Amino acid sequence: MLLEELIEAFRVLPGVGRKSAQRMAYHVLERGREGGKRLATVLAEAVERIGHCAQCRDFSEDEVCAVCASGSRDRQQLCVVETPADRLAIETATGYRGVYFVLQGRLSPLDGVGPRELGLETLGTRLAAGEVSEMIIATSATVEGEATAHYLAQLARQHGVRPSRLAQGLPLGGELEYVDRGTLSHAFGTRAEMP
Amino acid sequence: MLLEELIEAFRVLPGVGRKSAQRMAYHVLERGREGGKRLATVLAEAVERIGHCAQCRDFSEDEVCAVCASGSRDRQQLCVVETPADRLAIETATGYRGVYFVLQGRLSPLDGVGPRELGLETLGTRLAAGEVSEMIIATSATVEGEATAHYLAQLARQHGVRPSRLAQGLPLGGELEYVDRGTLSHAFGTRAEMP
Ligand SMILES: [Zn+2]
Ligand SMILES: [Zn+2]
Repeated sequence: MLLEELIEAFRVLPGVGRKSAQRMAYHVLERGREGGKRLATVLAEAVERIGHCAQCRDFSEDEVCAVCASGSRDRQQLCVVETPADRLAIETATGYRGVYFVLQGRLSPLDGVGPRELGLETLGTRLAAGEVSEMIIATSATVEGEATAHYLAQLARQHGVRPSRLAQGLPLGGELEYVDRGTLSHAFGTRAEMP
Repeated sequence: MLLEELIEAFRVLPGVGRKSAQRMAYHVLERGREGGKRLATVLAEAVERIGHCAQCRDFSEDEVCAVCASGSRDRQQLCVVETPADRLAIETATGYRGVYFVLQGRLSPLDGVGPRELGLETLGTRLAAGEVSEMIIATSATVEGEATAHYLAQLARQHGVRPSRLAQGLPLGGELEYVDRGTLSHAFGTRAEMP
C-alpha cells in the first residue's frame, strides 16, 4: 500500500519513529500536498547533485565550494571541523574569514573511522603546500573529538603549522552544533595555542 | 543554493523547525542517500496518487478504499472519526467490524470548517439510504469534538439512526490518536447511547 510505503520512507529521517512518520505522511496528504511535491523534487535533486568540495570536503554542488573558491578568504588560517553543521555554526557565530576543512566525522577506531575516512591525506597535502600558518582545531569537546584534536595537532606540527584549539568554555561532552551562539563565539575568539 | 532549498523544503513537515530541517538534510546527504532517493520517489507518487475514498473519505489510492469495498464488514454500524489516524487507531485497538466515515476535521466555524467541509451531505445521503442502524460517534473529547458529536447525533436522529458516543474515559481534551490502546479499546467497548 502506497500510504504504508510513504510512512516507512519517512523513517529514513533522523529521530523519526513510526508515530512521527505517520503524522508526517498524513500531514502532507491532508494539508501540504504542494509542499510535499516540492520536497520530493528538491530531495531527489539534492541527493543526485550535492557532493563534496574537492578542497574542504563540505557539501557542495560544484567541484569547489563557494568559500574555497572565494578570493576574499585568508588562506593562512585553516579551521578543521567535524561536520558541515559545525562549519555553518562557526561561519554564523564568529567573524572568521579563513578557510575550512570538514572531516565528516571524528577518529573512532571501533567504528572503523581512521585517518583515511577523515580525508587526512588530503589535509596533509594541503599543509605540505606551505600556505597555511595556523590550524584552528574545532573538533567537539567529546572524548573522540579530543583524540582527533591531538592527532591533528601532531599532523600540523609535522608540517610546521601552528595548531590552536577553541578555548575551553564549550560545555564538556557537548556537540558543537548545539552550543549557543555567544558561547561559541567567545570560545572561538579566545582559542589557545596547543601545548 | 540547493542545500538551502532542501532545508526549507523539509519545513513543510509537522513540528520541523529550522534546526531539525537542517539536521534532516545533513543526515540524508551524509548517511541516507539511498533512503532519501526512495523517500523522494514515494512522496512524489503518494502526493500524486493518494486521494479520498468516495464512500468514507479516508485516504485511498482507489476510488473506494479496501474497508468500504470489503464484503465482510457490517454496514449497519457506521463509525464517524475526525481523521484517518483516528480510524487506524480504532481499527488497530478494537475488534470493530463495521464501516467508517472520516470527517477530515471537526466543526470549527471560526476556522471556516462547517458541515460542507466535513462532507456531511454525503453522510446524510448515506444515512437516508436506510442501511445504517447505529452511528458510533468517535470524535475527540475536545470542545469542538463534542460540538461536532452533538451535530452528528441530531443528523443521525433525523434519519432514524441511533447515535452512540465512545464512553467517557477518554482523557479530557485528549486527541484520540494519542490515547493508549487499552483506554481506547475500553472506551470503544463501553460506548453509550447518546441522551
Ligand atoms: Zn570547499
Ligand atoms: Zn472507504
